[in-house]
Amino acid sequence: MEFLKAMTEKEAREIIQAFPVSPKVETVDIDNAQGRVLAEDLISGEAIPPFARSLVDGYAVKAKDTRGGKETNPVFLNLKGEVRIGEEAKTAVSDGDCVYISTGSMAPEGSDAVVMQEYARRMPGAVEITRAVYQGENICHEGEDIQKGKIVLRKGKSITSFDMGILAALGVSKVPVYKRSEVAVISSGDEIVGIEETPPFGKVRDINRYTVSGLLKKEGVHVTFLGHAKDSVQQITEKLELAKDYDIILISGGSSKGERDFVTASIEKLGGEIIFHGINIKPGKPTIYGKLFGKPIFGLPGHPGSCVMVTMRFVLPLVRRLQGKMIYGERTVGGILTTNVPSSYGIEEYVRVTLEKTDESRLVTPIFSKSAVISSLAQADGYIIVPEGTEGLEKGEAVEVYFF
Amino acid sequence: MEFLKAMTEKEAREIIQAFPVSPKVETVDIDNAQGRVLAEDLISGEAIPPFARSLVDGYAVKAKDTRGGKETNPVFLNLKGEVRIGEEAKTAVSDGDCVYISTGSMAPEGSDAVVMQEYARRMPGAVEITRAVYQGENICHEGEDIQKGKIVLRKGKSITSFDMGILAALGVSKVPVYKRSEVAVISSGDEIVGIEETPPFGKVRDINRYTVSGLLKKEGVHVTFLGHAKDSVQQITEKLELAKDYDIILISGGSSKGERDFVTASIEKLGGEIIFHGINIKPGKPTIYGKLFGKPIFGLPGHPGSCVMVTMRFVLPLVRRLQGKMIYGERTVGGILTTNVPSSYGIEEYVRVTLEKTDESRLVTPIFSKSAVISSLAQADGYIIVPEGTEGLEKGEAVEVYFF
Repeated sequence: MEFLKAMTEKEAREIIQAFPVSPKVETVDIDNAQGRVLAEDLISGEAIPPFARSLVDGYAVKAKDTRGGKETNPVFLNLKGEVRIGEEAKTAVSDGDCVYISTGSMAPEGSDAVVMQEYARRMPGAVEITRAVYQGENICHEGEDIQKGKIVLRKGKSITSFDMGILAALGVSKVPVYKRSEVAVISSGDEIVGIEETPPFGKVRDINRYTVSGLLKKEGVHVTFLGHAKDSVQQITEKLELAKDYDIILISGGSSKGERDFVTASIEKLGGEIIFHGINIKPGKPTIYGKLFGKPIFGLPGHPGSCVMVTMRFVLPLVRRLQGKMIYGERTVGGILTTNVPSSYGIEEYVRVTLEKTDESRLVTPIFSKSAVISSLAQADGYIIVPEGTEGLEKGEAVEVYFF
Repeated sequence: MEFLKAMTEKEAREIIQAFPVSPKVETVDIDNAQGRVLAEDLISGEAIPPFARSLVDGYAVKAKDTRGGKETNPVFLNLKGEVRIGEEAKTAVSDGDCVYISTGSMAPEGSDAVVMQEYARRMPGAVEITRAVYQGENICHEGEDIQKGKIVLRKGKSITSFDMGILAALGVSKVPVYKRSEVAVISSGDEIVGIEETPPFGKVRDINRYTVSGLLKKEGVHVTFLGHAKDSVQQITEKLELAKDYDIILISGGSSKGERDFVTASIEKLGGEIIFHGINIKPGKPTIYGKLFGKPIFGLPGHPGSCVMVTMRFVLPLVRRLQGKMIYGERTVGGILTTNVPSSYGIEEYVRVTLEKTDESRLVTPIFSKSAVISSLAQADGYIIVPEGTEGLEKGEAVEVYFF
């Protein structure tokens, strides 16, 4: 048949997953750390907060002293002083005492709770407490947020805005992260022209360059477009040679039989290896995966819709690994199919869908479109997967939607 | 009570939503367009594809001529030539004819379908067709992806990787987008020190600067940190004056009563206006919103957990509008609560949760933590909203989870 080494989706994924990666490490300033991948476990060098802090404005007390306090029958405590924000608490709280404290301030020694000022009435030298507090109430204890000596962020995690807060809390101003991958992107095909040209009959503008680069940039890699090759071994090998020093090579185009031969022939001519040619998926079947200059290379289908699906499902997971990302959760949402989705047994199919939230559930409606169509991607909310071992999905079935 | 002008969540949202915005437009190269907000409707100047294209390798035919074709009883068609990829199709298909065509090539005049080569046997000067095709099969018609003269991308939409493909297809190399907003971030509080310092007892490092900046950067704005002010009207007004030329001003800190007064007093001293002070939400109650130098200003709570929630729920929607983003869908997922969530009537509460997918549904488990705690944000998958008109949610209830 047409594809000599066609793989199932699972085989293809496992082969790609087995590519050995060795991401390099660099140190960046915290201001540039967001979105980068942490290259070492972050172990807290101190407790956060470093001291017990009040969560409210009020009176630091011993909780037991407030027992029975009511609006109609308050408890009296001696006011021993005040802790101001940003200052060390120097007045200890003994039995029957209280100390005024503002939000965020250090809870004084001896206190184990804070009574909100709404439940306290100030008297000369004393305070009436009109509501009892439990031990620990309105206090954030030393180390309650982060304990000292614990792993607080894992190596391989992409640093979020909240992780930035953890780095800041611990005073980590320089962050070890993995280097960004360098990705080479090449377009090929006699029918492709640059986007500034008006294509003559028979030719079309290069879409894949932009969609593939866009998907890659969202992963934080550096993308370099190495240009466009016509369907010839000479032109393709010329472009591939430029890609020697990149971490991964992507060449789109070559969906028609002749073109595919140019890409595979060029990889082999340069001493590379074709590992598989064809995956039993739709869209995206004519995908090439191999090794060139010791780096992974993908021959992506020319159809714009196929090209982005293969990029999302097969290229991006490898790109994440190349950049050291070991913790990654794909965002999905459950919903109910509004119509049947026919498919072929033995093919894993990706169907673009729209999502509509109703009071009861989420309705998932397939956009049936030909694989070349780019506009339906922009309209879709995500896609569903029709597994290869079925002949389709039925209206009313529960499905998982993968967000774009 | 404590907050003179406390608002409900809805009132606060409506007031902020009413701030008049007038985002400015600039033109960027397509290579820098991803993630920017389109400033004009994009109307297609041409049809995509510009001609009917084959989706497969095979034979362009008149569908009616293949009727009845079977493996055991094929139909014979005269082979009239070939269309090569990237070339104009010059040989028309008449009754009883076919033309060899490769994927992506232009379908010749007179043809209305393509027979995949797997269902054709080549003979000298003729082809045996072993399977009938329907009209339009394996052809992507002129304009099937994008019709000429249609609005294909709406003004106010953030440009995605797929939208990049649409821009490329239409040859739009320069893109009108809204300018990025300039956001001024200030930290305040006597208890705050820079992250490179080891805080003495009573003081803590500045977390909010990094979390707030991180959330803003994800929206594509330019963030400038204008420094840290102690709790004094003099220091705060000094910093606020530096923010004169920014599109929006955010000052964090001031959760304790005294500090709040410094922030409001400083805004008023500079001729600004406090529009509200306090929202009936948890966490995040001590939020200040006003106008200064004709720009919106937020006084964000000092608690790191409160500060990020208010930023996400109230600041980011305004920042999106300032940048012209008119199309925005928040990503949520439905799930089932694994435990009761108590709350107070009259307060809209945001509760951090983890999500766990099971075969049947998604389990939503609250992380009960004090609002000062930053680590629980990094651990959570998202948050749920307990509406102000309830006293909590019950185990087993269906809830919407907002992704972080």
